[in-house]
Amino acid sequence: MGSLQSDALDNVAATAGAAYPVSPLDPEEFRRQGHMVIDFLADYYHDVHKYPVRSQVEPGYLRKRLPDTAPNGPEPLEAILGDITHDIIPGITHWMSPSYFAYFPSSGSTAGFLGEMLSTGINVVGFNWMSSPAATELENIVMDWLAKMLKLPSCFHFSGGGGGVLQGTTCEGILCSLVAARDRALDRLGRDQIARLVVYGSDQTHCSIQKAAQIAGIHPDNFRAVPTTRADAFSLNPSALRAAIDKDIARGLVPLFLCATVGTTSSTAIDPLEGLCKVAKDYEHMWVHVDAAYAGAACICPEFRHAIDGVEMADSFSFNAHKWFLTNLDCCCMWVREPGALVRALSTNPEYLRNKGTESKKVVDYKDWQVALSRRFRSMKLWLVLRSYGVANLRNFLRGHVKMAKDFEDHVSADPRFEVVVPRTFAMVCFRLLSPPGLVAEGSTERANELNRRLLEAVNASGRAYVTHAVVGGVYMIRFAVGATLTEVRHVAEAWRVVKEHATDLLASCRSSDSAGPLVDRA
Amino acid sequence: MGSLQSDALDNVAATAGAAYPVSPLDPEEFRRQGHMVIDFLADYYHDVHKYPVRSQVEPGYLRKRLPDTAPNGPEPLEAILGDITHDIIPGITHWMSPSYFAYFPSSGSTAGFLGEMLSTGINVVGFNWMSSPAATELENIVMDWLAKMLKLPSCFHFSGGGGGVLQGTTCEGILCSLVAARDRALDRLGRDQIARLVVYGSDQTHCSIQKAAQIAGIHPDNFRAVPTTRADAFSLNPSALRAAIDKDIARGLVPLFLCATVGTTSSTAIDPLEGLCKVAKDYEHMWVHVDAAYAGAACICPEFRHAIDGVEMADSFSFNAHKWFLTNLDCCCMWVREPGALVRALSTNPEYLRNKGTESKKVVDYKDWQVALSRRFRSMKLWLVLRSYGVANLRNFLRGHVKMAKDFEDHVSADPRFEVVVPRTFAMVCFRLLSPPGLVAEGSTERANELNRRLLEAVNASGRAYVTHAVVGGVYMIRFAVGATLTEVRHVAEAWRVVKEHATDLLASCRSSDSAGPLVDRA
Repeated sequence: MGSLQSDALDNVAATAGAAYPVSPLDPEEFRRQGHMVIDFLADYYHDVHKYPVRSQVEPGYLRKRLPDTAPNGPEPLEAILGDITHDIIPGITHWMSPSYFAYFPSSGSTAGFLGEMLSTGINVVGFNWMSSPAATELENIVMDWLAKMLKLPSCFHFSGGGGGVLQGTTCEGILCSLVAARDRALDRLGRDQIARLVVYGSDQTHCSIQKAAQIAGIHPDNFRAVPTTRADAFSLNPSALRAAIDKDIARGLVPLFLCATVGTTSSTAIDPLEGLCKVAKDYEHMWVHVDAAYAGAACICPEFRHAIDGVEMADSFSFNAHKWFLTNLDCCCMWVREPGALVRALSTNPEYLRNKGTESKKVVDYKDWQVALSRRFRSMKLWLVLRSYGVANLRNFLRGHVKMAKDFEDHVSADPRFEVVVPRTFAMVCFRLLSPPGLVAEGSTERANELNRRLLEAVNASGRAYVTHAVVGGVYMIRFAVGATLTEVRHVAEAWRVVKEHATDLLASCRSSDSAGPLVDRA
Repeated sequence: MGSLQSDALDNVAATAGAAYPVSPLDPEEFRRQGHMVIDFLADYYHDVHKYPVRSQVEPGYLRKRLPDTAPNGPEPLEAILGDITHDIIPGITHWMSPSYFAYFPSSGSTAGFLGEMLSTGINVVGFNWMSSPAATELENIVMDWLAKMLKLPSCFHFSGGGGGVLQGTTCEGILCSLVAARDRALDRLGRDQIARLVVYGSDQTHCSIQKAAQIAGIHPDNFRAVPTTRADAFSLNPSALRAAIDKDIARGLVPLFLCATVGTTSSTAIDPLEGLCKVAKDYEHMWVHVDAAYAGAACICPEFRHAIDGVEMADSFSFNAHKWFLTNLDCCCMWVREPGALVRALSTNPEYLRNKGTESKKVVDYKDWQVALSRRFRSMKLWLVLRSYGVANLRNFLRGHVKMAKDFEDHVSADPRFEVVVPRTFAMVCFRLLSPPGLVAEGSTERANELNRRLLEAVNASGRAYVTHAVVGGVYMIRFAVGATLTEVRHVAEAWRVVKEHATDLLASCRSSDSAGPLVDRA
């Protein structure tokens, strides 16, 4: 790798006015290099099962391998791909591995990838209709297609006065909803009343809602994480919500926004939308957002659609197609009942963007539905996913993951050393190794938790599977989320073998050492 | 196209449990389809000069062509690519066309595209170091490379206690800076003081700063667009800033944030950073962000670096690699002096993300430097751009655009019917057709503006070039921004011919009709 040692050559180049040697977008060179990268990635998918799923590198590994400065001259793609193999791949945690069961999946697919390629290749900046009409109109159409697949009520369709928009992530979507709700409330209450507004979720709600509230200037004391209980399977209880709201009202505060979750991150709990929306309706100006980031995808299957019953009373709804819907990162699908509320809070109309399309009032200018001005042609990838696979296959694909999770759950349930901690709802199993009698004092939650921390680390350090954890109700549990696109039945079976082997080893090593001592150390 | 007519088949599929027919990520099918799309895009770049640059479709054109619902069964890629050619391409405004001179460029390249492919293909979700160490570490390294290329002071390098981050867009970057500044101020003043905070820009500052202020809950009355003048070439005058600040302080308000711009959207004006930062320093807690979204790229050339002199006194700096740096959308490069301020305002630490990497305190968790939790592996494309072209070629590429803009400026200056409205600084020429004596009353700005509105519309309706407009100091001018990757000298020459021809026609048609009437109608 050459590197930029000095600027000695700068003036030479500047005065010589040397022509750019090869056009950076020469079609034939693009073709040649594009084919190389396709082959590189096809080989990556072919081999990805061989790599340790969780990267095994130490902090700072890459600085030791790469130069300190950018090269002064061009380097061939062959060299760069070689460096990716040798230097980058070891630092990758392989979300595309068939043995990836961590967090929630990032389920890319051929169609999702090709859609991103087409979007990136055409490279339009679709901030308003005029800047590339097809980008806006395809998004309108695809969001209506998806709304029908999810049986969302007509108030969320464009024809019903609502509409859908592709955000990058749920965080952005929730932030936009919250800002719309905030400004709708402040229009009524007065702009100086921002410190009275309160945002509600549960102690299981994703951290993005608290972050969105922080960004939107909601007073930090005014975010309520209403406690959930094991009796409610860690879902938000409508009575608990009402009690929290009433308490705030009594203190002179104003309930602004509720984020209800369908498929929480820790345990895929389902907040009861109907009951929660009924509570919110009693405080007429509250905005209810339904965050179905993970589980929304499953709701295209009739047998799971009940999870979002009640959404017809909500103000906005979102799910991430990049999680469990074969669409490569990033793609958050959001629908709103009242697009005007978003537009009032987020629109800007500088002179240099004035155009006939906007003035016709017949078009959507998506810049006013999101944080940023610039936006990618994301609907292209969703369109490719929907058409390349079709609704029936998409449903079967999701069902296949649920079936695999059920298989894993059966394995766990059949092994008396383990327990399923919370009931499985979709394709994630939350389980833990039980403390063997005599080894860990009964009732010692912390020691039982430590046992599972060690099991998790042992599994992940093996590189043969990757799982992550959560703590609900004080119980540390291992989350086993099926959803990576390449995962097949045999990978789930292998993961269970890995878990069992490490559990056996761990229990043996605990028995052979002091039964109390080692288990209290955090690894 | 098949369509989803009913759910009659749902239960059949559900009970049959039909296996997914082809894996959505089968490596060989990925390879076959990937090669097809590469060829499709290579052909697109080969032919893009033939298409009307600005799409000529009418609102609603696409709904008439596409079905109302997603297909139930899969459709072949061949059919989808055919539909892109027939239905999508006509609705595309071709930002990749060599005759695209509108807004600012969206300068994709082979390397930028390939980097996005690799990022999308590997498809990691790099929210923290642990989730894929290479994604974070490569971003650290590449941002330091770029900081050196821009000769940013060491306070913005990781080694100097600062650091760089890739945001999607400038809007997101500014929002993060502003929220960090806001919370730093409110920690000092008290959380209930948000309504006293004031944000400053000029009347030429990009609308994203006002939008960021809105989102962050800054009182809508507290955004100051300080007026600029032609005498200052529409840059923000430090004395005018000081006067605005002092007036606010006298009213009991608190100056919070200044956004200074290097290369404004309307006319590429350069705010004098040194003078402005000195003013801000007198109000010690003010945060100064330097928005060089467009012009920052040019600052890798020694002859343009002076445009950001004074940045060493700023708190944050950003430019868009997706504008004029061969990096496909989206990629905003931002550096901050005090990452801790971002982290304090934007961090979240849920249990399910706890990990050894974070606890080691030796790593960056970029989720705490941005709005969203999820993030793409954007550094991959920047790394490919820097290595594939090298610093010397990148500079020459930018210089080539500046030279072409200079050529266009020379053409305009040599034609007495036209004038260059503001001095050219980078690769954009702001010009207008002068009102011919006798045709439009002297001093009638609105009629002169109308003449240029018509000229712009005629040029764009021809499909042979695409330009957009701005209004500064009441003067409507046509912006001619060179920067599309495929643009060569001959395309600039052709664009000038198109402008001249339409000007000739327009002046002739004005002369042959009522000299007063038609020119006051807005087209």
